[in-house]
Amino acid sequence: MSEPIRNKKPDITTAPTPQNTPANNAPISSHAQQPGIASIKEEDLDRATAASIFAQNPKLVSMIQGKLGSLVGRSSGYVESLPAPVRRRVAGLQGVQQEHSKLEAKFQEEVLELEKKYFAKFTPLYEKRAKIVNGTTEPSEEEVKAGEQDGEEASEDGESGKPGSTDKDESAESFKGIPEFWLSAMKNQVSLAELITQNDEQALKHLTDIRMEYLEQPGFRLIFEFADNEFFSNRTIIKTYYYQEESGYGGDFIYDHATGDKIAWKSDKDLTVKIESKKQRNKNTKQTRVVRKTVPTESFFNFFDPPKAPVGEDEDVAEDVEERLELDYQLGEDIKEKLIPRAIDWFTGKALQFEEVDEELEEGDFEDEDDEEDDDVSEDRDDEDESDEEVSRPSSSP
Amino acid sequence: MSEPIRNKKPDITTAPTPQNTPANNAPISSHAQQPGIASIKEEDLDRATAASIFAQNPKLVSMIQGKLGSLVGRSSGYVESLPAPVRRRVAGLQGVQQEHSKLEAKFQEEVLELEKKYFAKFTPLYEKRAKIVNGTTEPSEEEVKAGEQDGEEASEDGESGKPGSTDKDESAESFKGIPEFWLSAMKNQVSLAELITQNDEQALKHLTDIRMEYLEQPGFRLIFEFADNEFFSNRTIIKTYYYQEESGYGGDFIYDHATGDKIAWKSDKDLTVKIESKKQRNKNTKQTRVVRKTVPTESFFNFFDPPKAPVGEDEDVAEDVEERLELDYQLGEDIKEKLIPRAIDWFTGKALQFEEVDEELEEGDFEDEDDEEDDDVSEDRDDEDESDEEVSRPSSSP
Repeated sequence: MSEPIRNKKPDITTAPTPQNTPANNAPISSHAQQPGIASIKEEDLDRATAASIFAQNPKLVSMIQGKLGSLVGRSSGYVESLPAPVRRRVAGLQGVQQEHSKLEAKFQEEVLELEKKYFAKFTPLYEKRAKIVNGTTEPSEEEVKAGEQDGEEASEDGESGKPGSTDKDESAESFKGIPEFWLSAMKNQVSLAELITQNDEQALKHLTDIRMEYLEQPGFRLIFEFADNEFFSNRTIIKTYYYQEESGYGGDFIYDHATGDKIAWKSDKDLTVKIESKKQRNKNTKQTRVVRKTVPTESFFNFFDPPKAPVGEDEDVAEDVEERLELDYQLGEDIKEKLIPRAIDWFTGKALQFEEVDEELEEGDFEDEDDEEDDDVSEDRDDEDESDEEVSRPSSSP
Repeated sequence: MSEPIRNKKPDITTAPTPQNTPANNAPISSHAQQPGIASIKEEDLDRATAASIFAQNPKLVSMIQGKLGSLVGRSSGYVESLPAPVRRRVAGLQGVQQEHSKLEAKFQEEVLELEKKYFAKFTPLYEKRAKIVNGTTEPSEEEVKAGEQDGEEASEDGESGKPGSTDKDESAESFKGIPEFWLSAMKNQVSLAELITQNDEQALKHLTDIRMEYLEQPGFRLIFEFADNEFFSNRTIIKTYYYQEESGYGGDFIYDHATGDKIAWKSDKDLTVKIESKKQRNKNTKQTRVVRKTVPTESFFNFFDPPKAPVGEDEDVAEDVEERLELDYQLGEDIKEKLIPRAIDWFTGKALQFEEVDEELEEGDFEDEDDEEDDDVSEDRDDEDESDEEVSRPSSSP
C-alpha cells in the first residue's frame, strides 16, 4: 500500500538539471512548485455533480486569462536557454500543436451539434412536463407507474405515503397541475435558493415554465414564462448568454457576456428595489423631515440585470465585478444544465443526492452590506442624518 | 446596476406556502437553505481550466453517492403531503424523466464515440511528437515556422531569444531530440509536480512517451514508456482506469477502480520505499543494536499502486482512502486531458496561463506524516526505542 502523498516543497540543493536551473526565478517555475493538491479535491467534487448533460460548455477562460495573463505564461528563460537545435524542435512541436488545436475546435463544434441534436429529442419531454405542471394534461398510466417505481426505489423508509393513493379523498379536478412547481424546484437548488427572497416567492410562484434555446450564434437563452401576476406585465422574461465567436484554448467556447429582459414592473411592485427613509434635521432651522429614496435590494430578479464587464482600471471594482460575473454565469449554467433537464428531481429533492455538499462553506467570502451609503443625500442637503431606517418594501403584499 | 447578492438565510415567520411547510424539518429542505454561493466560485474556476478536451468524463458519483446517500435525497415529507391528484402528476413527471435519462445515457455514449473519433485524429500528431522528442525525426520547416509565430505572439517581452536562431552555434547532431521533455512537462503541471521527488526525477527523465488508449469496455489506460534505465526493467508502465458498465445520474460514466503495473525495480532501486534504521536497547541486557526496516515513502511511482476502495466499516479510514481515491482519479484525468493533449504547452509553460490559480491553498488539508509508527517493532522485541533516524534512501544515486 502506498503512503499518503505529502505536500512537499522540493528543495533546490541538488545537482543542476534542466528542471531546477531556469535562467531566472520566473513565475512559471515557482508556480509549478506551489502546493496545489488541496485544490484537487474541490475540483473532483465539482466534477462529481453529475448534472452536466451539456458538458461541453464555455469556460470563463477569458476572465481567467485576464487575471493570470500578467502572472504566468511568461517565459521562465528555460526554453530560451536551450541549445538552438533543441529550440527548433520545441518550435516544431508548437507547430504540431496548432494542428491539434484546430482539431480540438472542430471536436467542440461537433459536441455542440450533438448537444443540439439531443436537445431536440428532450424538447417534447419538456413540453409534456409543462402541460402536466400547468394542468392542461394528465400523465399517462404508464408514466405514473414508471414514476411510482422510481419513487419506491428511492425511498428506503416505509414512512412515505405511496404516491397516487387517495387517502385524502381528493379529486383531480380540485387541483390544477402541480402548484408552485418551479418555485419549489428552484428552492431546492442551492445556488438559486440563495437569491430568492420571500417577496420573490410571491412572484416566482407564477412561473409556468423555464425553457432553454440555443442561439443562432454561439450562446443560449433562458426563457422564464409567467402566468398573469400582480408584479409585472411580462409573460416571458429572458436572459441571454453569449459566447465569443472564436474558441479558446483547448477548443472551448468562451463566455462573453449576458443580457436580460427589462421587467415591466407594476406600480410599487418592483422587487429589485426597496424604499428607505431617513429623518434629516436642518442645521439652521433645526426642523426635521423624512427623506425617502429608492435603493437597489437583493432579489432573484436582479438575475435579469446582469453585471457588465469592468472597463475602468480600478482593480478592487474589477475584482468585485468579476466575482459577480462568475456567479451570474454559474447561475445560468445551473439553470441550463441542472434545473431545466431535471426539474422534477429538484422538485422532489432527488437531485440533491448528486450535488456536491460543500462542508467548508466560506461565509467570509460574502460581506454584510447592510450599511447603505446615504452620503449623497446628506451632502446635497447640508443636513445631518439623525436616523436611518427601512420603512417598507413596496411589494410586501402576500 | 444590481446589488451584490447577499448570503441570506430566509426566516420562517411568514404565511405557510408549499415551500416553507415541509412535513418535517428533513435534510432536503434544510440543505436547500444552506448558504452555498461560496462554492460556486470554485466550480467556476475549475470549469475554466480550459483543458477538458475530453470533457464528457466519468464522475466520482458513486463515491459521492456513498457519502451523501444517508444525508440527502430522503423524502422531506413535502411530496407525500400533497393532495393525491398532485402526487399522481409528480409520479407521472418522474416517469417522463426516466425517458429523459435514457436519452441522456445515449447522448453520453455518442459523446464518447466522438471522443474516440477525434482521438484517432490526434494520434498521428502524438506519434510525430514522440519522434521529435526522441530525436528520430526533425520537425518540418512549416511546423517550425508555425511554432515560432505562435511563440512570438505569446511572449510580449522582447527579451526571449528567437527560437531556431543559432546564436550558440550548436549543430542539430549534438543534441538528440528534446532532453527530459516529459519530466519538464510534468513538473509544470502542479498536481503531478507535487508527487515528483528528486529521486523520481532521475527515473522520470528516461520517459520517452506518455500515451493514452481507450479500453474495449468503458475506461482508459495511461502508458508510460521509458528508455533503458538503472531503476527498473519495465519499458512500459501502465495505469488503467475502469468505469462502471452502467451509467449514472445524468448519463455520466462512473469511475469504478484503477489498477497499475507492477514495477520491476532493480536491486536497491525501489523509489517507493526507504530504509529506516533505529537504535534499540534491550531492557535486560542494556545492549543496543540497529534495526533496519523498509518503509513506504512518497514517490510518483506510487501512482502505479492505486488505493483500493474501502471495504471495512471504519469511517476515518474510509474517508482517508476516499480522499486518496479522488486524488488518484484526478491525477489520471489530468494526465489524460491536460498533459497528453498539450504536452508541449506544459513543457514551455504556456498551458499554465489557462490553469486555475488557487489563491487559498488549504495546506491544512494535508497532515504532516513524518511521525512514522514503529510501535510494532518495539512491541515485538520488548525493547525501548532510543532514537529513530532515517539513514538513507536506497536510491540516492545521481
